[in-house]
Amino acid sequence: MDLRAYRAERSPLAEAFLEGCLPPADQPPEALHGAMRHLVFPGGKRLRPLLTMASAEAVGGSAEQALPAAAAVELIHTYSLIHDDLPCMDDDAERRGRPSVHVAFGEAVAVLAGDALQALAFEVLARAADTHGPALAAAAALDLARAVGSAGLVGGQVDDLAFDPATLSNERIESVHERKSAALIAAAVVGGARLAGGSDPQLADLARFGFEVGIAFQIADDLLDEGEDDPCSSLTVLGREGAEKRAEWWLANALDRVESLGSPAEVLRELARFSVRRDT
Amino acid sequence: MDLRAYRAERSPLAEAFLEGCLPPADQPPEALHGAMRHLVFPGGKRLRPLLTMASAEAVGGSAEQALPAAAAVELIHTYSLIHDDLPCMDDDAERRGRPSVHVAFGEAVAVLAGDALQALAFEVLARAADTHGPALAAAAALDLARAVGSAGLVGGQVDDLAFDPATLSNERIESVHERKSAALIAAAVVGGARLAGGSDPQLADLARFGFEVGIAFQIADDLLDEGEDDPCSSLTVLGREGAEKRAEWWLANALDRVESLGSPAEVLRELARFSVRRDT
Repeated sequence: MDLRAYRAERSPLAEAFLEGCLPPADQPPEALHGAMRHLVFPGGKRLRPLLTMASAEAVGGSAEQALPAAAAVELIHTYSLIHDDLPCMDDDAERRGRPSVHVAFGEAVAVLAGDALQALAFEVLARAADTHGPALAAAAALDLARAVGSAGLVGGQVDDLAFDPATLSNERIESVHERKSAALIAAAVVGGARLAGGSDPQLADLARFGFEVGIAFQIADDLLDEGEDDPCSSLTVLGREGAEKRAEWWLANALDRVESLGSPAEVLRELARFSVRRDT
Repeated sequence: MDLRAYRAERSPLAEAFLEGCLPPADQPPEALHGAMRHLVFPGGKRLRPLLTMASAEAVGGSAEQALPAAAAVELIHTYSLIHDDLPCMDDDAERRGRPSVHVAFGEAVAVLAGDALQALAFEVLARAADTHGPALAAAAALDLARAVGSAGLVGGQVDDLAFDPATLSNERIESVHERKSAALIAAAVVGGARLAGGSDPQLADLARFGFEVGIAFQIADDLLDEGEDDPCSSLTVLGREGAEKRAEWWLANALDRVESLGSPAEVLRELARFSVRRDT
């Protein structure tokens, strides 16, 4: 199945599941629920949920099994965008061509909507105890919590905000990329295989694959954002051509990690290529 | 055992466990880890962890069994204080006689430290799968996630911020109290009994007890804050004497709920009285 067909078939599963996770916008407190939904729907490329579903299928499971992890990761991704856009952070008034949450709903509600989305992500995983058994649910919650805490997503964001151009090196930049972007992408990949009953060696390979895809993804983002004023960009040290090569190098490493999974992992590999090359 | 002796003996357990949960302040990113610790240590009265431990003991378990839930609830409480103090919320420059986190570390780090504390709370509960089994860990995570999301803590905070004095009623005020304060106190109580293997009927009684203590606690807070400019205070509708009576009424209801637990719940009842009367 090619990527376009895969996306057309699997995306509606994730959309429907996400829709069921979020309280209706007309349920009080309406401002909070509206703000929580504002960026989740229609959402972006849904790359993370697609990776989660493809990862479940790569270890012989189904996309349906992956849905709680796919939703949880997308809820976390959304909360992190809402908080990143705040005036005290990146101060972005727009996101995906619409007003940011703090512009549309006010700063206080934006902070709180992010907070509630994070809680909801863990609620969705904890509830998976009923469908997937408590061992898989607790393990998936632990994977996600580690990925998004001070050693992962949040720590990377702090280091990105405080990035000191005087100590610029590719190693420091990729350390931010690894935590700010790759940790959640790795959690997306691991979460799907975890809920589908993947073995420990498979989960370890998929975690490395996810990290490597995530770093390549962030370098590709840096290439698209060329000219923006962020010193923590792979381009500042490597230049355009060097960054392109580096992204391909990480991608090749990632693809090697899951070679042994064979043809069931073909869509997962296609998604990795797409994440980096954005060409389909 | 009287409350003073109980506190002297059990508080060090919770302090040591919390200390072990938080990354050292000299571990990078140092600003983030410093900000996460700023309000956790020395902390306040530690009422919630004490309730969690006493609840475990009330159902025949040990304070030690309750520690992951006690720590998780205290981490959530701390994150909510950090976010509440932000300029876009209550804009408080001080907390417990020290600079608020956003004053000491900047607004961006304060938002992110709160975010990381929430993730850490769920990490601590998910890790309890190793010590308490995955079923109790997943159930405790679900209890907490529900208590702190849009139907609980965060929803109450949104309604408190947007509180409309034109629609003032005791029912509306107590609806905010129930979510903003009581939901987390109920989660503290339920979490301890849950991790100590309490039965479903015990957990249901303790949940009601926690909610009722929590509302009484918030009315007592309103009484202490008399004169502050918050329309969402029980005093605005009930007056001082009425609010005192109402707090005692909720407290009496709460004490009734756990009457059947007998003498093992005596400390829990003492804590409830103290939460409301603040007289020891």
